[in-house]
Amino acid sequence: MHKTKVSIIGGGNVAHHLIYRFQTAGISISHVYVRSYAAQNDLAEQFNIEVMNVPESIDDDSDILIIAVNDDSISDLKISTTDKLVVHTSGNVSLNTLNNISENIGVFYPLQSLRSDNFDDERIEIPFLIEASNNKSLRKLEDLSGSIGSDFIQADEDTRRLIHLAAVFAHNFTNHMWSISDQLLNKEKISFEIIKPLILNSIAQLRDRSPLELQTGPALRKDSNTMQSHLHLLKESEDWTVLYKIISESIKKTHHD
Amino acid sequence: MHKTKVSIIGGGNVAHHLIYRFQTAGISISHVYVRSYAAQNDLAEQFNIEVMNVPESIDDDSDILIIAVNDDSISDLKISTTDKLVVHTSGNVSLNTLNNISENIGVFYPLQSLRSDNFDDERIEIPFLIEASNNKSLRKLEDLSGSIGSDFIQADEDTRRLIHLAAVFAHNFTNHMWSISDQLLNKEKISFEIIKPLILNSIAQLRDRSPLELQTGPALRKDSNTMQSHLHLLKESEDWTVLYKIISESIKKTHHD
Repeated sequence: MHKTKVSIIGGGNVAHHLIYRFQTAGISISHVYVRSYAAQNDLAEQFNIEVMNVPESIDDDSDILIIAVNDDSISDLKISTTDKLVVHTSGNVSLNTLNNISENIGVFYPLQSLRSDNFDDERIEIPFLIEASNNKSLRKLEDLSGSIGSDFIQADEDTRRLIHLAAVFAHNFTNHMWSISDQLLNKEKISFEIIKPLILNSIAQLRDRSPLELQTGPALRKDSNTMQSHLHLLKESEDWTVLYKIISESIKKTHHD
Repeated sequence: MHKTKVSIIGGGNVAHHLIYRFQTAGISISHVYVRSYAAQNDLAEQFNIEVMNVPESIDDDSDILIIAVNDDSISDLKISTTDKLVVHTSGNVSLNTLNNISENIGVFYPLQSLRSDNFDDERIEIPFLIEASNNKSLRKLEDLSGSIGSDFIQADEDTRRLIHLAAVFAHNFTNHMWSISDQLLNKEKISFEIIKPLILNSIAQLRDRSPLELQTGPALRKDSNTMQSHLHLLKESEDWTVLYKIISESIKKTHHD
């Protein structure tokens, strides 16, 4: 039986996690290509593999070429190949961007916040959103995802963008709320540690219930005394006052309209 | 050595968790008082204890009386006692509200989102914010917290209110972000499960870094193409469009000003 071989273009956060997981799963990596000399050395050393400069024509023995570079750099790549499956790993870039590179193209987007310094943390689950120009390519991406133990869902461009937007609310905006919380506590030299059990518990509760069911707090209870006292504490920060009011209004609207 | 005995007024979420943890830690519960007959039966059955109506004068053999009723009901309680330590469990009610009840008063506020249906989940950590009218009472509350395995910090009224505000950002507002994320996905019948690994990872990363360091996303990167495409997806919801813009602006301001 033919075993899948992959090649990867890119040496950033996504490339680190993919190379590590492919190596761990015994998937052979034909070539890794990067643009900078520094990235070349870093990757060669970390993963004990040969790393090369991006060529114009990719005719190595891999079945799947994974482009894991910045969103904006994908369309700048001047590469071509024969009938190899070529995929990018972006949440927001159209599949069609790859039209000139190969006849078999796809998207293999990891829905996770990946940092190159924690690529070997195996507790991090990485679900993939996949899309392809034909069914045979789609099956290849499903297999690739499965072979590194990841869940996947098929998602066309509009769906992928919607899920990316949902991830911005669930991850980036949530993190900003924690960051404001941390900064409020810092004013009184109180450690964010005191809040962490509350955060851990709120995640744990998501196992059994939806966030809509789990909503609590003064805005939900329409507890205007508490909200007034909070706004008084925020009076020196116009920015956070606006956020407090608008998010509270949105909670009221969601749960009482 | 005299072992501490507690009594509790209230049969709601906080009372459930406290009774369970006191019983588990071998702290004896002298009396539990509630106002409604239904709560009386429920508690008596769940914890195999005698539950009584709230009397006017509390002269039982407990050392500490814990008032775990709604914020607004605390000042309505027409009770008195001798020199027993009387504490309430609210994040937003002043210590002075208890002035007429006893000479020894305090606050024993659990900084956690507690539901009566998960009172026996021992994985839930409950840090306490404590305050008291004198040092002897403060020591009693520290001991009480320690004996059920909880962390505590001493916090006067202003500090307690600030921490409560920080908790609203970290917990209630965060949950609302998850809820919007869930509702966006529901539009396309996609399960929130796909987003959960991202949420779990974001919490795990808080072990080593502050949320300020961990911020990512299009607003941080000032990626206006992605933000435009997100706003286009949100165009049918004025409410979420406003939230998206204001939170994104706040992220930019925090990280780039």
